[in-house]
Amino acid sequence: MPNPTAAMLVIGDEILSGRTRDANTHHLAGELTKHGIDLKEVRVVSDDAPAIEAAVKALSDGFDHVFTSGGIGPTHDDITADCIARAFGDHIDIRADARALLEAHYAKTGLELNAARLRMARIPDSATLIDNPVSTAPGFTIRNVHVMAGVPSVFQAMVASILPTLTGGEPLLSQTLRIDRGEGDIAATLTQLAADFPDLTIGCYPFQINGAFGANVVVRGTDGARIDAAVTRLARETAQ
Amino acid sequence: MPNPTAAMLVIGDEILSGRTRDANTHHLAGELTKHGIDLKEVRVVSDDAPAIEAAVKALSDGFDHVFTSGGIGPTHDDITADCIARAFGDHIDIRADARALLEAHYAKTGLELNAARLRMARIPDSATLIDNPVSTAPGFTIRNVHVMAGVPSVFQAMVASILPTLTGGEPLLSQTLRIDRGEGDIAATLTQLAADFPDLTIGCYPFQINGAFGANVVVRGTDGARIDAAVTRLARETAQ
Repeated sequence: MPNPTAAMLVIGDEILSGRTRDANTHHLAGELTKHGIDLKEVRVVSDDAPAIEAAVKALSDGFDHVFTSGGIGPTHDDITADCIARAFGDHIDIRADARALLEAHYAKTGLELNAARLRMARIPDSATLIDNPVSTAPGFTIRNVHVMAGVPSVFQAMVASILPTLTGGEPLLSQTLRIDRGEGDIAATLTQLAADFPDLTIGCYPFQINGAFGANVVVRGTDGARIDAAVTRLARETAQ
Repeated sequence: MPNPTAAMLVIGDEILSGRTRDANTHHLAGELTKHGIDLKEVRVVSDDAPAIEAAVKALSDGFDHVFTSGGIGPTHDDITADCIARAFGDHIDIRADARALLEAHYAKTGLELNAARLRMARIPDSATLIDNPVSTAPGFTIRNVHVMAGVPSVFQAMVASILPTLTGGEPLLSQTLRIDRGEGDIAATLTQLAADFPDLTIGCYPFQINGAFGANVVVRGTDGARIDAAVTRLARETAQ
């Protein structure tokens, strides 16, 4: 059975303007690979309601899981929860269970649970909450979409909360062979290898160090013995 | 007149598996912002022909410019050029002008211009070449799509080649104000500021340092005096 598929949706003007470098995609990609869920697509869209709604719908239809990052805080530019409720035609308002979490948290910290902070308890009726051990305000899952915060420490904690609840497939294994030859020299060898190992994917990533060309060849698949066999053959055939 | 819009398409399994962290998006985002072109969407797709073709078509239809990164080298997993030709119904083969560039380059280096390396001269009939001062093998522009390499040094050189040829708009200016209060405390102030300065976008990016909460508020727009006015008012209203 093929592994479940996933897409990531990053929401935020700050990524698109170049102010902030997105770190959440790289983290999620690594975690999903370990869990046997294949990340197939990433999209980054701005804090724009029609763009968010269209992307959520398209990715929810196209993949088994969608993970979103960003736009669920207390300020005016945090519009993700409302957009996702609208995308699925669900009702959204301050929900008692999320409000109770925030009340307990702010009672401890002594900060005021004002109207802005209460926005973080806006959860669609049909959603289930995602635990946030870092800063309490929850994420949520609606249908196959997991809605999480953009702050990396919170995003990572939410991924750790949700991932064990999702059925994974076979973890994707990989081995990397560094070859100190230009990739144009080894391309024919790689083409034949890919044809002989159709169950593996073989990627070639060139580099240049001090003027010398080389390539890292990454062999990926779910069967470790097959990967061993391919890498052993590749090392033999590209030895100089 | 609104600024031209753009999308970025990153092609590569290595990003989606978590092996490699994409660096090209962040570079392009900063360059486009300086040039007055608004980056509106980013997509990352795998080395999969239908996924590449569908994404190129959708983004080409939706935005003034599309910039792609990855998949134009000499190996079997470099399928971008052929996919993009197919997406636009154009014929593709080894083209004389691109071949001449490679011949001159490999004659100098003493490396063989073999069949694999000649794949880098596969250019759609209707495309114009993008100069590659780093490693010669050119990118190309077809319609509104600029097809570039994934290796960051080459990608950056190609962006520098192409960007001066594109009509930009007004550069997006920004100022950042660091406020050492939780974003829930300043949210109401920001909402009112955003309403009073509809020509600016106001983003709030929370952080936590040694247990203390704060937020960077970023005010963006094309009129420096308006940004000054908004930031001055914000500093006054959030002073403690």
